[in-house]
Amino acid sequence: MTTIGILGGGQLARMMALAGAPLGLRFSVMDTSAEACAGQFAPLVVGDYRDRATLEEFASGIDIATFDFENVPAGSAEWLSRRVPLFPDPRALGTSQDRLAEKTLLGELGIPVPGYVAVDTPAGLEAAIARLGTPCILKTRRLGYDGKGQFRIRAAADAAAAWEALGAQAAAGGLILEAFVPFERELSVVAVRGRDGEFRTWPLTENWHVDGVLSASLAPARVSPGLEARAVGHARALAEALEYVGVFALELFCLDGGLLANELAPRVHNSGHWTIEGAETSQFGNHLRAVLGLPLGATRALGRACMLNWIGEMPDPVAVLAEPGGHWHDYGKTPRAGRKVGHATLRADDDEALAAALERVGAALGREAQVAPVVARLRE
Amino acid sequence: MTTIGILGGGQLARMMALAGAPLGLRFSVMDTSAEACAGQFAPLVVGDYRDRATLEEFASGIDIATFDFENVPAGSAEWLSRRVPLFPDPRALGTSQDRLAEKTLLGELGIPVPGYVAVDTPAGLEAAIARLGTPCILKTRRLGYDGKGQFRIRAAADAAAAWEALGAQAAAGGLILEAFVPFERELSVVAVRGRDGEFRTWPLTENWHVDGVLSASLAPARVSPGLEARAVGHARALAEALEYVGVFALELFCLDGGLLANELAPRVHNSGHWTIEGAETSQFGNHLRAVLGLPLGATRALGRACMLNWIGEMPDPVAVLAEPGGHWHDYGKTPRAGRKVGHATLRADDDEALAAALERVGAALGREAQVAPVVARLRE
Repeated sequence: MTTIGILGGGQLARMMALAGAPLGLRFSVMDTSAEACAGQFAPLVVGDYRDRATLEEFASGIDIATFDFENVPAGSAEWLSRRVPLFPDPRALGTSQDRLAEKTLLGELGIPVPGYVAVDTPAGLEAAIARLGTPCILKTRRLGYDGKGQFRIRAAADAAAAWEALGAQAAAGGLILEAFVPFERELSVVAVRGRDGEFRTWPLTENWHVDGVLSASLAPARVSPGLEARAVGHARALAEALEYVGVFALELFCLDGGLLANELAPRVHNSGHWTIEGAETSQFGNHLRAVLGLPLGATRALGRACMLNWIGEMPDPVAVLAEPGGHWHDYGKTPRAGRKVGHATLRADDDEALAAALERVGAALGREAQVAPVVARLRE
Repeated sequence: MTTIGILGGGQLARMMALAGAPLGLRFSVMDTSAEACAGQFAPLVVGDYRDRATLEEFASGIDIATFDFENVPAGSAEWLSRRVPLFPDPRALGTSQDRLAEKTLLGELGIPVPGYVAVDTPAGLEAAIARLGTPCILKTRRLGYDGKGQFRIRAAADAAAAWEALGAQAAAGGLILEAFVPFERELSVVAVRGRDGEFRTWPLTENWHVDGVLSASLAPARVSPGLEARAVGHARALAEALEYVGVFALELFCLDGGLLANELAPRVHNSGHWTIEGAETSQFGNHLRAVLGLPLGATRALGRACMLNWIGEMPDPVAVLAEPGGHWHDYGKTPRAGRKVGHATLRADDDEALAAALERVGAALGREAQVAPVVARLRE
C-alpha cells in the first residue's frame, strides 16, 4: 500500500486524495492549519513547513510526496526530497516561485511574455513605469497568488502609493513591474508529464477572473486549432525544460491572435477542475499517475463543461443538482470572504445546452453576472 | 456539515464516502472489523451490530444513516431508525432479508419469479424436489449473498446431502427450494427512488457470474426497448410497494424473451459500479442524493462501459490504465481467496472499441475467459 504525502491540505489535496483512493493509494497531508479541509479524508500532520520535527513526522509516514501548494519553502522541499521521492522536482517549484526567474526561462524558450522590469528602488520603479507605460502592475517576485501581493498602477503618479504598499518587500524577495495586457481572452493549458517524459494536455480552457480570482472556466475553449497548437507547444517546451513530472497549468493571455504567457502554476489547478467530470481522466488522477510512474490517462473532453467557482460561501446546491449535467463540489470549508469554498461543473453535449443550463443556474442563484460571459462566448 | 452514518464498512461504503465528499458530506462507518476498507477514508466505529453501546456511539456522531450491507440485524436497524432518519426503511431491508417474503411480494406485484417452495423438513425437501424438478437450488431464507448458503441439487438423490449441508438452518431461519432457471442472460436494473417518490433507473446492465460471484457487467445491456421497459416497470412497482428510498438493484433472469425476478439487493450494487465513470451520475452519488432529499442526478450512460471484478487479489493495473477509457478501483483490501478486492471499468464510445479494449486487457492479464462472454455479446 503506497502512501502519498501532500504538502498543503486545501481543496487541491482533498480532491487529489479522493481521486487517488480508487488507485488503492493512501494519503497523508501536511498543513499549517488543523482545519485544512483535506484532513476530512486523510490523516493530517499540522505544523510549519520550516519546522524540521513536523517535516520529519510527515516524511516518516509516506512513500512519495507532492504538493497542493507551490509556496512551500524551497529549503523544506529540498530537505524532503532527500528523504522520499518528491514530484515535481523542487527546481520546478523554485522557478515558478520567482516571477523573474519564470519570465527569464519563458523568454529563453521563445515563449512570448508581457513586458516586465525588475524593480529594486523607488527610482527604479519610476524608470520602469516610464519604460512599460501605464497601466502596469507592481508585483512581489515571490509568494503571490489569486491577485495577492499586487498593486495596479493606473498612472505614473501612482508610483509612490505602489512603493508604499509593496516597497518593503523589495529587499526581502524583490519586486517586478509588469506591463498591463489588454487581453481579449485568458486561456490556460492544463498539462501533465510522466516520469518517462510522456506529455499530454487537456483541451484548452478559457477562464474569467473577478478581482484577480478565477470565477468561471469553459472547456474546450473555442479557439482555432493553430492557436491551440501554439499553446500546447509552449506548455511542452516548459515541461521539458523543467523536466517536470506531474500536472501543471500555464496561464496565457490572448491578444490580437497572439499568446503571451502569464504564469506557470506547478500543481493541479483551479482551471482544471472541470476535468473531474468533463474529461476521461481528471487532472487529479493524472497527476497521481505521473508521480507514481503509471501510464497517463486519456485527456479527451466528454462534451463541453463549465466550472463556476464559489467564493466566500456555498450557494444552495439544489439548482445545480437539478441540472442533468450538474455536479457539485463543496470543499467542506468554513465560509470566509474571498475564500474558495467550492465549485460546480455543468456538463452538456453541445454549446446551446450548456448555455441554457448556465442561464438557469445563474438565474436561480442570482449569479447572472458570473455566468454571463460564458453564455455569451457559447452563443458567439 | 451533515454526517452520514453507514452500517457496514466495505467497498460499497468506501465508494459512497468518496462520492459524498464533493457534496460536502462527512461520514462515519460502523463495521464488525477494524480492517474495514471504508475506514481508510472515514472514521470507523468497530463492534457487533447487536451491541447497543457500539450502536449508541455510532448514532451519537451521525445525522442520518444508511447501509452498505443488507444483513444488518433487523432489530438493530429498527433501534437506529428511532434515533436518526434511516434510509432505506428497515421494512425494505426486512423483506429482502427473507427470500420467501421477497418472492411473496414480487408475486403480489405480478412480477414473475422462478418456481419456489418453502422447506422445513427432509420430507418436505423431497416433496419440493419432486414438484420443481431438477436441477434446483436449496437456499437459506436469510443471510445469503454471493452464492453463500446455497446447495445445488442435480438429482433427487442429492436431497440427503443438501439437507446435511443446510438442514440445521431450517429451524433458525428457514429454507427455500428454488427451481433452476436455464437463463439466457442475467440482467439487473439499478434504480433509485427519492424521498419525494421520484424514480429513475440507469440503463439495464447485463451480468456474468462465475461460481455465484459477479465477474463482469456490460451497460447499457443490448436488449429490446420492450424488455427494458418491462424490467424498469418491475423495479418501479417494487420501489413503490416498499416506499423505498435510495438505490437498489433488481436482478433478473432472461429466458425465452421473458423476465423472471431473481432477487432484490436493497443497496448500491456491484452491477452498478460501471456508473461511476459510465453514467452522468453514479449510483453512489444518487443514493446519497436520495437519502438526503436532494434532486436526483441524471442516469444516462456516457457511451458503453464494462466492469470487470477482481476477486482474491488485484492484477497489475498497468494494462487497464494504459487503455484510453480504463479506470481502476482498488478497494485497499488485504488479498484473500474469493474476496472482492477491486474492479476495473472500461469505457468506450462504441461496441467495437469496447470489445477491442477488453481483448487487450484480457490478454495482458491472462484473463481471456473473464472478458470472452462480454466480447462475444458486443460482437453479436
